[in-house]
Amino acid sequence: MDKTWNVYLAGEIHSDWRQVIEEGAKEAGLAVRFTAPVTDHPASDDCGVAILGEEDKPFWKDRLGAGINAIRTRNAIAEADLVVVRFGDKYKQWNAAFDAGQAAALGKPLVILQPPEHDHALKEVDAAANAVARRPEQVVEILRYVIRGELAR
Amino acid sequence: MDKTWNVYLAGEIHSDWRQVIEEGAKEAGLAVRFTAPVTDHPASDDCGVAILGEEDKPFWKDRLGAGINAIRTRNAIAEADLVVVRFGDKYKQWNAAFDAGQAAALGKPLVILQPPEHDHALKEVDAAANAVARRPEQVVEILRYVIRGELAR
Amino acid sequence: MDKTWNVYLAGEIHSDWRQVIEEGAKEAGLAVRFTAPVTDHPASDDCGVAILGEEDKPFWKDRLGAGINAIRTRNAIAEADLVVVRFGDKYKQWNAAFDAGQAAALGKPLVILQPPEHDHALKEVDAAANAVARRPEQVVEILRYVIRGELAR
Amino acid sequence: MDKTWNVYLAGEIHSDWRQVIEEGAKEAGLAVRFTAPVTDHPASDDCGVAILGEEDKPFWKDRLGAGINAIRTRNAIAEADLVVVRFGDKYKQWNAAFDAGQAAALGKPLVILQPPEHDHALKEVDAAANAVARRPEQVVEILRYVIRGELAR
Amino acid sequence: MDKTWNVYLAGEIHSDWRQVIEEGAKEAGLAVRFTAPVTDHPASDDCGVAILGEEDKPFWKDRLGAGINAIRTRNAIAEADLVVVRFGDKYKQWNAAFDAGQAAALGKPLVILQPPEHDHALKEVDAAANAVARRPEQVVEILRYVIRGELAR
Amino acid sequence: MDKTWNVYLAGEIHSDWRQVIEEGAKEAGLAVRFTAPVTDHPASDDCGVAILGEEDKPFWKDRLGAGINAIRTRNAIAEADLVVVRFGDKYKQWNAAFDAGQAAALGKPLVILQPPEHDHALKEVDAAANAVARRPEQVVEILRYVIRGELAR
Amino acid sequence: MDKTWNVYLAGEIHSDWRQVIEEGAKEAGLAVRFTAPVTDHPASDDCGVAILGEEDKPFWKDRLGAGINAIRTRNAIAEADLVVVRFGDKYKQWNAAFDAGQAAALGKPLVILQPPEHDHALKEVDAAANAVARRPEQVVEILRYVIRGELAR
Amino acid sequence: MDKTWNVYLAGEIHSDWRQVIEEGAKEAGLAVRFTAPVTDHPASDDCGVAILGEEDKPFWKDRLGAGINAIRTRNAIAEADLVVVRFGDKYKQWNAAFDAGQAAALGKPLVILQPPEHDHALKEVDAAANAVARRPEQVVEILRYVIRGELAR
Repeated sequence: MDKTWNVYLAGEIHSDWRQVIEEGAKEAGLAVRFTAPVTDHPASDDCGVAILGEEDKPFWKDRLGAGINAIRTRNAIAEADLVVVRFGDKYKQWNAAFDAGQAAALGKPLVILQPPEHDHALKEVDAAANAVARRPEQVVEILRYVIRGELAR
Repeated sequence: MDKTWNVYLAGEIHSDWRQVIEEGAKEAGLAVRFTAPVTDHPASDDCGVAILGEEDKPFWKDRLGAGINAIRTRNAIAEADLVVVRFGDKYKQWNAAFDAGQAAALGKPLVILQPPEHDHALKEVDAAANAVARRPEQVVEILRYVIRGELAR
Repeated sequence: MDKTWNVYLAGEIHSDWRQVIEEGAKEAGLAVRFTAPVTDHPASDDCGVAILGEEDKPFWKDRLGAGINAIRTRNAIAEADLVVVRFGDKYKQWNAAFDAGQAAALGKPLVILQPPEHDHALKEVDAAANAVARRPEQVVEILRYVIRGELAR
Repeated sequence: MDKTWNVYLAGEIHSDWRQVIEEGAKEAGLAVRFTAPVTDHPASDDCGVAILGEEDKPFWKDRLGAGINAIRTRNAIAEADLVVVRFGDKYKQWNAAFDAGQAAALGKPLVILQPPEHDHALKEVDAAANAVARRPEQVVEILRYVIRGELAR
Repeated sequence: MDKTWNVYLAGEIHSDWRQVIEEGAKEAGLAVRFTAPVTDHPASDDCGVAILGEEDKPFWKDRLGAGINAIRTRNAIAEADLVVVRFGDKYKQWNAAFDAGQAAALGKPLVILQPPEHDHALKEVDAAANAVARRPEQVVEILRYVIRGELAR
Repeated sequence: MDKTWNVYLAGEIHSDWRQVIEEGAKEAGLAVRFTAPVTDHPASDDCGVAILGEEDKPFWKDRLGAGINAIRTRNAIAEADLVVVRFGDKYKQWNAAFDAGQAAALGKPLVILQPPEHDHALKEVDAAANAVARRPEQVVEILRYVIRGELAR
Repeated sequence: MDKTWNVYLAGEIHSDWRQVIEEGAKEAGLAVRFTAPVTDHPASDDCGVAILGEEDKPFWKDRLGAGINAIRTRNAIAEADLVVVRFGDKYKQWNAAFDAGQAAALGKPLVILQPPEHDHALKEVDAAANAVARRPEQVVEILRYVIRGELAR
Repeated sequence: MDKTWNVYLAGEIHSDWRQVIEEGAKEAGLAVRFTAPVTDHPASDDCGVAILGEEDKPFWKDRLGAGINAIRTRNAIAEADLVVVRFGDKYKQWNAAFDAGQAAALGKPLVILQPPEHDHALKEVDAAANAVARRPEQVVEILRYVIRGELAR
């Protein structure tokens, strides 16, 4: 009867942060449906050419894949009650910032999950967010509070 | 099969007006899902620092908490079929007027629940509302009429 | 599994046209949820003062009632997959044309149900509509075709 | 340097109310650009067939004209800072109520200009309006106050 | 618990491409609800006059039918998580391109299904799409990947 | 002081219909700013590779060009007070129908200019339009009437 | 040639903060057009009955005035590039918070100008703002930086 | 009389790419108004504390500055006919990707200016763009073509 929250977990795909959040929410008994981009990195890179046919140039191979991935992510953002974007230690992660920009422009509540060393580089993104968290467990606490009004103290 | 109405009960958190409305709607057998801000005042004030870490300055402590509370309230307003905003006797209650302004700008039906002594101070807010009620029981009557077309006479 | 259509039946409240459409849709086995303004005319006129308290001037009595009725109709239009507006033989029926204008501005599919003698007076409204029907049975046929692709021939 | 207000004068085309407002605004030195539907009634009725070719059936003749008139009125409503809708003594005037419905759904400020005998029939329209005026001179006063903050007292 | 995807299959109605996609999705166990325009060509052409009454001129007969068909298609596009538009070998198929234009303007994810000989003529449409597929089986693969992250390799 | 109308002339680029409309509007002294896609066909086809560099595959050459052309056309549609779409005798013209679909979804007034032999194929597009004209001179007459209320009779 | 910024100065009308900002912007040579609610308090209170006729009940007198004032303020918010909301020492000032809520919901950049003693009561409003200033001179500095990139250091 | 294009030049602020584009557009005689974030890096970093007062924690110093910078950039994106985002060789540049995400969600035409070594990291951003350019001179060529239809060949 109560609402099930849609939470889109965007960004970094090389650590287990999504699992920590999903298990934490489950343990807390929170009614949340999590969505995510495809986190199998090779599949995400190859989906375009695997489905639509080979391309010689990497530029167009990437284009084919990005177009298909966007079907999933655009739906995920559009339906989200909350968008969580994780910035990790490696890679450019422009995709994460791009998702955050879309979420902000659509008026979606936004939580950024990032280590302090990125604070200055992420200052515009952080300023558009409802919260800046350091650890995935904090995202679980945010969900618990926002959904049930409970604060672990 | 019939629609369940989403009603967001915004504003004052120091009297039992939400309970009166929720029980009245239940007794009347109305299909309504009520949402509200977190009404545990200390939790609402502390949620930011409790989850994200301490802040020395009250200004930033408040900022952390307000950001998290907004995740809940922005969703509540966006999904509401009706927003009821209660103004009570104490405090500044700018948060209540801020919620009413958001609801009005989003084209949400709006009911203001307030004592007559605030009429002049609330005139712009009232003018944007579908109804100005004095007692929570009147909100139940509005819901009964709006949902089932029934008028207690 | 298939979609249930939301159809708002706006306008005239003094004949049984809604019943004809609802029964026709039921007999045809169509998955439709119908909504309507409150069709109990005295209740619709009195709801404001009955709930919120008496007013001396008819102008403000009407204002109180119209505000509450709009909670119901605004929701009905916003959720509708199809808005059907019936113009009958009597009264000014500006409310019906007002609902049609709102539906058109929101991009809602629109069917006008009216007798031919109103054709000229309704020409702007008709031009914004997907269909102009003469009898409620035609609205049932439109629903059957639009929902199931079936044409009685 | 100051803003020029766009005011759309919709509705009745058989009395000189537009002229009264336009001259009053001019005398008051207000920076207003007024728009209106085509007020030459025969031209408004005939524009479709005169431009696009004859039609045997009045229903389709009306459709051709209404489509072309809507190019003008849809632009006028979309650009308006204020929509004034006049209801007079004669005719069905559903077109006026339809324009008011569009303006309301688009969030446009709305003033209704009508005689008191229509109060009850227009109650839903009036409830969506910022003001209900009785004489065109009052509309000039509203413009003077809204644009320059001046009140004739 | 997981989302059921709404996929609108627009365009060509003279080959079995919809059946291939629907069966492929079913075999893959994907949670998809497919919508489509009415694919019974004579019914689609005749629905207007069959329901609303005969018209002498083909132009107005077509108008009556197109208005009713648009009730179905406008809803289908508005609710779609993905719009697939098929261009075949015959006919003008402006309706397909018109649907694609609506989907693009509404920000809907878009897949074009077309033979290579139409590449140049469809270049603007393709540039607005997330993917250009050649065979309906590729659309099934896109759905499988987008919904479940699985890539047949 | 009066508004200058923005009219986007979309579609066919192989006859002089735009010139006829532009000269007609000029002769009539109408304040109109006309926009159009790039009508130099080779430039329109080559702009992508000419600016961004060669591509071997025609599919990607077309993609580069279409992306750049869309910068111009998307702006033209977004700013238009009226979109006129011309369908001629040759080519697939899916681009024209795609522009019409975008205009319709954005709520832009729409005039279709087409020969009668395309009536059936264009029925869905025509049903979304304010007018269907046969000759460019009729578009001038529509502009004259819509802008100045004048009807040549 | 450069943009003139529209800045809406909402809120408190009993001190000279607007004059300080307007003169400061003028001295700095900034291209800004300032708008404001009617700051003549008696005029703002009386405009409804002065124009539309007397009302016995203060509630309806206030309603008439608030409706007319909203014509001005709704336009001011809708056109603003920046909304500045001032909270002073006296009165309930719910109107100011209501304007801030509308601005936030419409995605308008927002600056709150308030004394520190209101920090806690305004925490939700502040969290939706781009900046919280203490003195009107700081608003001038914000404008100078935002418009010309200059920082007084 | 012709439109002046608004072009927002977002992203990298450490090379002269904006100057190249602005001078190129000027030489070509194109009617373009360029906007940009504040490109004085220290000013951009310090604006918050310089105007609003010191903060001990870098996190909050950054927050103050980012809030003020967003007043400028949000306006620039909202008014742009074209958003050009430059990714350079250094820094994280999440701000650039965040701006691109906002532009994409708002349906703004988008050009990405980047070196080929970032192709893979920017694939999702590039897929949302109308063009991917390598040199600022290409952006000038795009503007020349889009505004005047001229192609240097």
